Amino acid sequence: MSRKVAVIGMGHVGSTVAHYIVANGFADDLVLIDSNEDKVNADALDLKDAMPNLPYHTNIVVNDYSALKDAEVIVSAVGNIKLQDQPQADRFVELPFTRDAVKDVAPKIKASGFSGKLVVISNPVDVITSLYQQLTGLPKNQVIGTGTLLDSARMKRVVADKFNVDPRSVSGYNLGEHGNSQFTAWSTVRVLDQPITKLAAERNIDLPELDKESKLGGWYVFKGKKYTSYGVATAAVRLVNVILSDARTELPVSNFREEYGVYLSYPAIVGRQGILEQSQLDLTEEELQKLQNSANFIKQKYNESK
Amino acid sequence: MSRKVAVIGMGHVGSTVAHYIVANGFADDLVLIDSNEDKVNADALDLKDAMPNLPYHTNIVVNDYSALKDAEVIVSAVGNIKLQDQPQADRFVELPFTRDAVKDVAPKIKASGFSGKLVVISNPVDVITSLYQQLTGLPKNQVIGTGTLLDSARMKRVVADKFNVDPRSVSGYNLGEHGNSQFTAWSTVRVLDQPITKLAAERNIDLPELDKESKLGGWYVFKGKKYTSYGVATAAVRLVNVILSDARTELPVSNFREEYGVYLSYPAIVGRQGILEQSQLDLTEEELQKLQNSANFIKQKYNESK
Amino acid sequence: MSRKVAVIGMGHVGSTVAHYIVANGFADDLVLIDSNEDKVNADALDLKDAMPNLPYHTNIVVNDYSALKDAEVIVSAVGNIKLQDQPQADRFVELPFTRDAVKDVAPKIKASGFSGKLVVISNPVDVITSLYQQLTGLPKNQVIGTGTLLDSARMKRVVADKFNVDPRSVSGYNLGEHGNSQFTAWSTVRVLDQPITKLAAERNIDLPELDKESKLGGWYVFKGKKYTSYGVATAAVRLVNVILSDARTELPVSNFREEYGVYLSYPAIVGRQGILEQSQLDLTEEELQKLQNSANFIKQKYNESK
Amino acid sequence: MSRKVAVIGMGHVGSTVAHYIVANGFADDLVLIDSNEDKVNADALDLKDAMPNLPYHTNIVVNDYSALKDAEVIVSAVGNIKLQDQPQADRFVELPFTRDAVKDVAPKIKASGFSGKLVVISNPVDVITSLYQQLTGLPKNQVIGTGTLLDSARMKRVVADKFNVDPRSVSGYNLGEHGNSQFTAWSTVRVLDQPITKLAAERNIDLPELDKESKLGGWYVFKGKKYTSYGVATAAVRLVNVILSDARTELPVSNFREEYGVYLSYPAIVGRQGILEQSQLDLTEEELQKLQNSANFIKQKYNESK
Repeated sequence: MSRKVAVIGMGHVGSTVAHYIVANGFADDLVLIDSNEDKVNADALDLKDAMPNLPYHTNIVVNDYSALKDAEVIVSAVGNIKLQDQPQADRFVELPFTRDAVKDVAPKIKASGFSGKLVVISNPVDVITSLYQQLTGLPKNQVIGTGTLLDSARMKRVVADKFNVDPRSVSGYNLGEHGNSQFTAWSTVRVLDQPITKLAAERNIDLPELDKESKLGGWYVFKGKKYTSYGVATAAVRLVNVILSDARTELPVSNFREEYGVYLSYPAIVGRQGILEQSQLDLTEEELQKLQNSANFIKQKYNESK
Repeated sequence: MSRKVAVIGMGHVGSTVAHYIVANGFADDLVLIDSNEDKVNADALDLKDAMPNLPYHTNIVVNDYSALKDAEVIVSAVGNIKLQDQPQADRFVELPFTRDAVKDVAPKIKASGFSGKLVVISNPVDVITSLYQQLTGLPKNQVIGTGTLLDSARMKRVVADKFNVDPRSVSGYNLGEHGNSQFTAWSTVRVLDQPITKLAAERNIDLPELDKESKLGGWYVFKGKKYTSYGVATAAVRLVNVILSDARTELPVSNFREEYGVYLSYPAIVGRQGILEQSQLDLTEEELQKLQNSANFIKQKYNESK
Repeated sequence: MSRKVAVIGMGHVGSTVAHYIVANGFADDLVLIDSNEDKVNADALDLKDAMPNLPYHTNIVVNDYSALKDAEVIVSAVGNIKLQDQPQADRFVELPFTRDAVKDVAPKIKASGFSGKLVVISNPVDVITSLYQQLTGLPKNQVIGTGTLLDSARMKRVVADKFNVDPRSVSGYNLGEHGNSQFTAWSTVRVLDQPITKLAAERNIDLPELDKESKLGGWYVFKGKKYTSYGVATAAVRLVNVILSDARTELPVSNFREEYGVYLSYPAIVGRQGILEQSQLDLTEEELQKLQNSANFIKQKYNESK
Repeated sequence: MSRKVAVIGMGHVGSTVAHYIVANGFADDLVLIDSNEDKVNADALDLKDAMPNLPYHTNIVVNDYSALKDAEVIVSAVGNIKLQDQPQADRFVELPFTRDAVKDVAPKIKASGFSGKLVVISNPVDVITSLYQQLTGLPKNQVIGTGTLLDSARMKRVVADKFNVDPRSVSGYNLGEHGNSQFTAWSTVRVLDQPITKLAAERNIDLPELDKESKLGGWYVFKGKKYTSYGVATAAVRLVNVILSDARTELPVSNFREEYGVYLSYPAIVGRQGILEQSQLDLTEEELQKLQNSANFIKQKYNESK
């Protein structure tokens, strides 16, 4: 068996996912799908133009849903980031567009006979992940949103800058909606072998300020580029690789939590069967309340979206 | 010593170069420069958001020309691809814009004390490479254009498709201007251990048709995406890695050929000192004529550009 | 689908193959088999001790033949290099040992239901590859010996040193037996865009001397280390990756040529189905004679081995 | 600037370090040094035989101490593992041999003008690291032993197996001597977002049993292979990469702690200047006592070794 991965939606994020995979030889077969035939063919051709100067070969198939049947992972990056480029917009301005796209795409995925794992980047990711699960009929553990894997990375960047260490030497999570109701669960964050709450008290560091900075990260990127791509694509491909290799890595991703009745980001053990085990954090009362609020918000948006 | 690389110009190509380098840990220090502060900061932040999910760390410095002093390689990707998005446009519509940008950038590179290698992607690349060499005062062998390293890759893709083999199992070159006057030197192309001219005769393959298809490749990508990025960025980063590791690889890149008096693409041995040795092909009379025409065209454009 | 690869025989070469695969994340599932339980378990444990400091995860399974059923590629590295450590020894001193090992291993591979590709490193490789094909009953195109992929690399190293270029900028092949009857087919070798025969004449280079140096390479390594590992393991893993990704790369490997009636090294297009197409070189009369001699030698040894 | 790394001592570990670096293109220039000329030349040649089939090029220099002058990192893997292959042997049986080797090597490093970072794998590592620091006169923060970076990896492997997760999702440290007096500081170990001490109590897991299993790991590998290589080489190369890229990663390595007056393993922030900052753990009384015992043992051995 070789590695087969698909990317649906070749906007900035989807094409960056495809390029990252091809440049590193992470997949043997890569299926690219987009309703914009010119765009997906252009990306495929551009990637093929890269291959003679790359060490790895990847077979690229374009716009063939039947090729999804034996894919191990499909990455959904459908969306329309341009809709966010207006005052007061948030990820939910994309919902009607993306919902309609998913209603088109999901039945085709289902019809292909696909039985692998679906990694959802499309925003608003928690609602869209839920929608995908419902429309494809895949088991809940096989449909996963990248969720706050990106936001947690942003939090780590901010904390790492503050403490002057490698962001990979910071642990902890942002939880809840991949959107405005999310929050850093500071009780889970550790750096320099200490709870950050302890260090913050000792060193007079304003954690809400770090939280704000972390949240603003995506906004700064969006403001400067009119989209975000590298951070989220890297998170998504990491998730894909964890699934392919059955690594059983603990990652904060959007997964269905029974107690909240929605998809939201909360750490889980991820492997070849998707979500293998759900973690159980010891959150503070305040964090639990924030998480409940975030869950409520996602549920409300999901109900509105149907 | 660690690896220090810089990218000037954070459009589609420059940012793809930066992402490819960061995602693979090809550099330890990466300097990103762009006159659009918001864009370059957004890309830097987006790349930093990727790092917690990457295996490698890269130090990113933004808009600091003084950091170029001890860089091993600078990649110039300044340009304005949007100018090409009009009927009858070719790479020369970018010339006035890019010439002015280079006149701004090159003296700053010089002032930094930089004495490394300059890899030029900016179009029209042969003219711009020449301009950079002149304005920075760097030795000619240290200023190199990516030139037809991309076009040769496109030719390999087309030939590989025709013969159903890996494009890396095709050898040979496109020569001359990275532009409309370039051509595939079919006398240099080999596949399946045979000169392609022999195989084409045996199998009734129309080489001019392949040439056309190869040339159209970039146009198709441009048409579908409004820019090209992965092919050219991969070529550029391969060139950077060859320089960093002093690999002495033979590559068709834009280098100054005395007999033509211009920068144009012709294979050369590339290593840590830049162009180490110039190859000498046995071209046909027709190919020599095409190359002369291409050289004349570049010279004329260069003279007009001054 | 994920990537599943197996290595049978955990001596110096097999364990280097395993380490190279694990260190680069080339496989998702890796089956390691050796009759020396302590050794294979030690290597597996040592590789697992590496993983917490590696970016990739690989699932390692030890000594389970049933796990071969759905493997994409099996690498055979069984052998006993110590037998070569005596005066006048060549690769054939390993034959009785390895033949017996293959007679033990091959039926177990067959019984597992394996229907993938078998990459044979075990020496004398041409005879052993033939034996594996016969005993497993796999189609001839699915059983491939690494053959002169290593010897060609050694030739490229020697030529590259002489011409002061990257060995990857040298093309051409060593042909025939991976053993003393092999030879460099100088008519196929090109460097600096010229046939080496032409350059050798111009520059007064003694090609037989280069041939000798190339052949001595393995002997020097063996003399200094009492085994060889990195060169051959790299060749084998390159072959594995070409198969996994269906790259259709042209490689000089040991494949069954009807006109000679034996397995011997001759370039072929390799992809996911193994040998996809056999190349056809324009060899000189002298080279054809050498190849015939090499084929005769292999045939004789094969007949003796049965 | 490009990356220059040296490896001194080409036994099983040193040569695996060299191969891992070459196979991944982690260095541009690699200096290999060993008093056994045949062995180091054999390894260099074997690595060069790998390069034509590798995507990266590395310049290899053999047995030239003057080439160390501008190296960024030197890895010391000198030692004689065979000395450990006897009943009741521990890492200290290597001490007289390695001490003498270091007394030969260190002055040559100093004489080269080397001012980079020295990564010591040679056993007994804490004593040997100290000896290197003293004999080279390099600042203490620039001389680092791999120490319990390997033992911590082994502990993570054992814990990960128990909890069925990725070892990279386990955090925590083994501390003290890289030898028999080391211990897992269970108070630092976390898995599934909980202190392992809490989970062990809940799930009735015997931590001393895990500790024993973790310690036995190296012994099992040694028993089966007569040496260990992949785990420790991976740890060392990770440390090298962290230094090259100035990643500021927190790692449990052997560094000089003033309060104990010896080199011992304790987490520290590592970057381009070596040890940038020393962590401060909240150890239990029992752990502090164990660490003091381990420090005393190292000090005693160091004094005996002089």
